[in-house]
Amino acid sequence: MISPLAPQLFPELPAIAGVQLATFAAELRYKGRPDLFLAVVPADTAVAATFTTSRCPSAPVDWCKKHIGSGTGRAVVVNAGNANAFTGAAGYEAAVATAEAAARALGVAASEVYLSSTGVIGELLSADSMTAAIGPLVDELTESSSDGWASAANAIRTTDTFAKGASRTIGGCSVVGIAKGSGMIAPDMATMLGYIFTDVSIDAARLQRLTSQAVGTSFNRVTVDSDTSTSDTVLVFATGAGGHEINDSNEGEFAAALNGVALDLAHQIVRDGEGATKFVSVNVDGAETEAAAERIARAIADSPLVKTALAAEDANWGRVVMAVGKSGEAADRDALRISFGDELIAAEGVAVPGYSEERATEHLRGQEIDINVHVGVGTASATVWTCDLTHGYIDINAGYRS
Amino acid sequence: MISPLAPQLFPELPAIAGVQLATFAAELRYKGRPDLFLAVVPADTAVAATFTTSRCPSAPVDWCKKHIGSGTGRAVVVNAGNANAFTGAAGYEAAVATAEAAARALGVAASEVYLSSTGVIGELLSADSMTAAIGPLVDELTESSSDGWASAANAIRTTDTFAKGASRTIGGCSVVGIAKGSGMIAPDMATMLGYIFTDVSIDAARLQRLTSQAVGTSFNRVTVDSDTSTSDTVLVFATGAGGHEINDSNEGEFAAALNGVALDLAHQIVRDGEGATKFVSVNVDGAETEAAAERIARAIADSPLVKTALAAEDANWGRVVMAVGKSGEAADRDALRISFGDELIAAEGVAVPGYSEERATEHLRGQEIDINVHVGVGTASATVWTCDLTHGYIDINAGYRS
Repeated sequence: MISPLAPQLFPELPAIAGVQLATFAAELRYKGRPDLFLAVVPADTAVAATFTTSRCPSAPVDWCKKHIGSGTGRAVVVNAGNANAFTGAAGYEAAVATAEAAARALGVAASEVYLSSTGVIGELLSADSMTAAIGPLVDELTESSSDGWASAANAIRTTDTFAKGASRTIGGCSVVGIAKGSGMIAPDMATMLGYIFTDVSIDAARLQRLTSQAVGTSFNRVTVDSDTSTSDTVLVFATGAGGHEINDSNEGEFAAALNGVALDLAHQIVRDGEGATKFVSVNVDGAETEAAAERIARAIADSPLVKTALAAEDANWGRVVMAVGKSGEAADRDALRISFGDELIAAEGVAVPGYSEERATEHLRGQEIDINVHVGVGTASATVWTCDLTHGYIDINAGYRS
Repeated sequence: MISPLAPQLFPELPAIAGVQLATFAAELRYKGRPDLFLAVVPADTAVAATFTTSRCPSAPVDWCKKHIGSGTGRAVVVNAGNANAFTGAAGYEAAVATAEAAARALGVAASEVYLSSTGVIGELLSADSMTAAIGPLVDELTESSSDGWASAANAIRTTDTFAKGASRTIGGCSVVGIAKGSGMIAPDMATMLGYIFTDVSIDAARLQRLTSQAVGTSFNRVTVDSDTSTSDTVLVFATGAGGHEINDSNEGEFAAALNGVALDLAHQIVRDGEGATKFVSVNVDGAETEAAAERIARAIADSPLVKTALAAEDANWGRVVMAVGKSGEAADRDALRISFGDELIAAEGVAVPGYSEERATEHLRGQEIDINVHVGVGTASATVWTCDLTHGYIDINAGYRS
């Protein structure tokens, strides 16, 4: 069943010159659908990335971290259905074998091949199956195109109910991204994977800085159930082929495009949250620092009590007060203001006399919910996006392990 | 519906000489049942307490914090149905009025009267109703008895499905406690309230230290859904009337009795977790510090993915790996060991060859679940207790606000 919050259509994504895409059905777990994705980028492409903060990362995350310092790379290979996480030395060897096979087939160095795996934890990824699939996968390589992006976005799905893509343009160049998550992966993971490609020209250090910023305010500001994957990875490739050079004077423009793609993809992930029926923006302002605002917003967005109230379309603002309190961040209880949509419900430490429960409930009946909280101790703000917590979440996660 | 994890009977709790108890139906919210509890203790009783860490505490928590430094007190008044939280200056005035009315009726100072309120957030507690109820409440005072403790434990219930009590004996004295939680309170709060009485003789500073320790390893080590109340309060009263004096040489013995009562009550709160069908002990060892072990155990116990797997009786150990990873604490992925009950499932960074999924599942079919995790970086350990996450939780919290 497709999420009720899904976009109507997968977007038309533009080609990025020199970027080649391929998908292939290796049938490592899923049958009758592509489960491998390969992208090849030109020499001298700048590469930046962010990875899960998990202390138990997957083998491909270990592999990528080892090589991302170079700031460059030629390819990325992604498999869906097996996370290659908690698979010990054999799992790491399977990752190395995959990178080496792809490197041989493409005529590049293994250290230039990035890897992601998403799916079941604790099952060994077969090195033989992966290396055997590399040949047919490479045979499928074609210049990137709208159809190619759609196929790629579909190949990396696990329990996602729709494929995720987004693009922006800047100075005659494009920024294109695909992602997966967080219909959490059978059996385990809210794995978020994102791959973003652009033809602007940018040095690797600048790209890494802007990537970290973009991820910090997009992928890292969404939450479905507060769980963190062993495998989260966002990789950004800048080929330079489009000729538009990013420097100090115009980096804001590129940052806006990159942030736009990242945020669009991150929002699509929330819209595919397991069991989600509401897309919720938690907007906190008046905090001491942006980090504090984010932690307060996250405490609200992660609260099972807030999320079940939203599922019930119940303007239960007491649960928001509770979540602000538990965040541990400075908040002035007697200056706190809470509104659902435009309806101000609580202010100055008490319920607003004569607030309309009906208007607040009306807002909650929609699919797009705004919870606005002013905490009254400063000027910093942050937004975290989440979804509601429904029986659907329990059905999916208490009912299913393949 | 009573929780399937409830004890068969409320325990027989002994009298504590000089401690008087009363309950009364003020009908502030609930009809046809007592909703006020009063305990009066002799002069020179030592008092210790711990309170919620919420940055938005309720008015009675503010009141108690103001007076607990004295280390003494004569009474506690508790109302169920209204949390008197987020009620501004008027809420605080209602708390003061309640304490003053009780003080007048009992012939003690208002600063010697502690208060707790549990229930709906953001609705003003009527000072008139509270002060009017104090007279009839005081009229009900009788020496503590088994029946009195049972009535008191019932009067402080909100959505609890059973009353909670526990006792231990030490050197001819007793330690008796009652508690409420965490059938979270309509509409909001996982409020935990605990009141413990003993007739040992102990100075207030020692009692506070031992109370903080006891709460740290009991009430603070249970979690139903990771949410934190505005109102959590544990108060401990030591009358000294039993003559058994606690000093450096025998404090361990008293600490064991106090910890025993606190842990028993805390476990009963988990057994009344909303929608709970499993009582789960998450035991972490091999950590760098006890605090690290607790945070890892809490990451597992709070994970919606782990809790839904337990509800499904699914030995989904990959979700435990994920939770260890997300805790942010040091853990050696390649030395990690995970067992469900006695069945070792993962060790040395991989699934144990030939582990029995069937035996692990058999353990999960019971009502008492042990998840044991060795993280391989030290010698410290901690246990956190929780319950599973079921449709019942969603039903209760997405369906109900009175």
